[in-house]
Amino acid sequence: MSSSEFSIIEEFFTSKSDVGLCPVMGVGDDCAIVDVPADKQLAISTDTLVEGVHFLPNSDPELLGCKVLAVNLSDLAAMGATPAWASLAITLPSVDKAWLARFSKGFFDLARRHSLQLIGGDTTRGHLSITINIMGLLPKHRRLTRSGSNLGDGIYVSGTIGNAGLGLKKALSGSMDTHDIDLLSYLKPSPKVELGQILLGMASSCIDISDGLSADLNHILKASEVGATIWHEKLPLSNSVKQYMQELGDDVWPYSTGDDYELCFTLPETVSEEMLEKLQPFHVSKIGVIEQQSGLRIKMNGREVVTLNKGFDHFNVR
Amino acid sequence: MSSSEFSIIEEFFTSKSDVGLCPVMGVGDDCAIVDVPADKQLAISTDTLVEGVHFLPNSDPELLGCKVLAVNLSDLAAMGATPAWASLAITLPSVDKAWLARFSKGFFDLARRHSLQLIGGDTTRGHLSITINIMGLLPKHRRLTRSGSNLGDGIYVSGTIGNAGLGLKKALSGSMDTHDIDLLSYLKPSPKVELGQILLGMASSCIDISDGLSADLNHILKASEVGATIWHEKLPLSNSVKQYMQELGDDVWPYSTGDDYELCFTLPETVSEEMLEKLQPFHVSKIGVIEQQSGLRIKMNGREVVTLNKGFDHFNVR
Repeated sequence: MSSSEFSIIEEFFTSKSDVGLCPVMGVGDDCAIVDVPADKQLAISTDTLVEGVHFLPNSDPELLGCKVLAVNLSDLAAMGATPAWASLAITLPSVDKAWLARFSKGFFDLARRHSLQLIGGDTTRGHLSITINIMGLLPKHRRLTRSGSNLGDGIYVSGTIGNAGLGLKKALSGSMDTHDIDLLSYLKPSPKVELGQILLGMASSCIDISDGLSADLNHILKASEVGATIWHEKLPLSNSVKQYMQELGDDVWPYSTGDDYELCFTLPETVSEEMLEKLQPFHVSKIGVIEQQSGLRIKMNGREVVTLNKGFDHFNVR
Repeated sequence: MSSSEFSIIEEFFTSKSDVGLCPVMGVGDDCAIVDVPADKQLAISTDTLVEGVHFLPNSDPELLGCKVLAVNLSDLAAMGATPAWASLAITLPSVDKAWLARFSKGFFDLARRHSLQLIGGDTTRGHLSITINIMGLLPKHRRLTRSGSNLGDGIYVSGTIGNAGLGLKKALSGSMDTHDIDLLSYLKPSPKVELGQILLGMASSCIDISDGLSADLNHILKASEVGATIWHEKLPLSNSVKQYMQELGDDVWPYSTGDDYELCFTLPETVSEEMLEKLQPFHVSKIGVIEQQSGLRIKMNGREVVTLNKGFDHFNVR
């Protein structure tokens, strides 16, 4: 190999974001340095994507650069935080400049859209794997958490559910149609950063749907010490997902598929129409209600049909 | 496997540090939240260690948990920052509870010593690899960087050089003698966090020796746009390293061995005796001088013998 670690960082990952909150020092010293405004707190999240576990071998590098950042932005969205800075640790089997150029394009295109600055990272040799540490800003004493939902709160989701799961099936069967809504949901998720910011001070709890609606909603229920009922008919599903469920003969399939990166949140019963109107651009659906009895119950045609307490788990499912 | 990702985080990585600056929210939601004091800036660094590249297969998990944190603390030391928080992303081939218990012990033993709090992370399945994102605090407008060294500045290193490199050779040849100073330097490096804090406002530049003295000092020279001469006789070497160099017949071997995690820094000629006395507990040696002519020259017995511009590089050397 002709390229060194230092030149990789310089060539592909230095000063590509020219928008947002500049760090005091960025890539190029032992540490980056940032100034957190006095009226803000820092929200921090870390996610790793491993080839063969979280994405398919030989994935398109531009889509991958976008997706790995989207997954991390989605965690900020779930807290209502405004993206500020990120570090990128990338482990590569070898230096492939064409691959790195496309990966970095996908990463920075999405970073710019959210005024996010890359402030540091590490490049190492090994099985392809990417870890991002993302930092966002929150007004002091305000945040969305998993633990605030109350009895009677409505349960909402943005967008539609199950498309990314179906997109993964399509990708596995070799589909390359990048106009396909399901494949796009899987390959190029759109983190709901703006929605999260609107929900700040409005929602009683919030989480992003990464491991599947049932698993993620169960995190809210556990943290809030409550239970819930979902009205199955209200679940927002695309025609493609409905058709797949019919073929499969499995009504609860979309509850356990991961990678949607929509937000699931709860709003108090008293939420005003004016507030709800602000959510309209994000195609939000009310799908259920928070209850005292623990567990996540699914009702179809008014009858409880199943209790769901599981979802995607990296060590158990795949 | 019987354990899920969620229970791994709960069992091994929650609330083990009870010292230091508590986060507003720690492990357990989509993000952690921290409050940066108004008179402080945040220093941030990310390092990945991959099995087979940065540590040997079947490494002792307790030593590994300590080392991966030490490597990251060393980056904070090089900036003069005080450790505050860290995120840990760990990719494991399978859930091995005994391994995780020992890894987490090694990690938290060192974390406690430096009042560092673990605030988040991710566990994924794959080839063993660990990424830490570490955050430390700096007084506003004060920091150690690579770019501040000036003509005539003295060049200093802490401790002795080459022991970790020799320790790696010993580990590769199967040595398990954990009282051996070289093996210990390699397996359990001691990050120079307190020295970094003393150097803040005193040193004109600083870096930690991770990739080898010549590579790391060259980073200072490049960033500061200067050159340097090292007086080879002044290089602090243990008897074991001297003996190994003799066997090898290679006088410049310790300049290119990595993993020492000592600090290399420059001090102005005008540095006071009082200041120098503060450095005594850290076994600091003056080894050379910053010059105008670019490049890193090694002098032996007053004669220039070689110019060194390289060191350890993950993609080129191993």
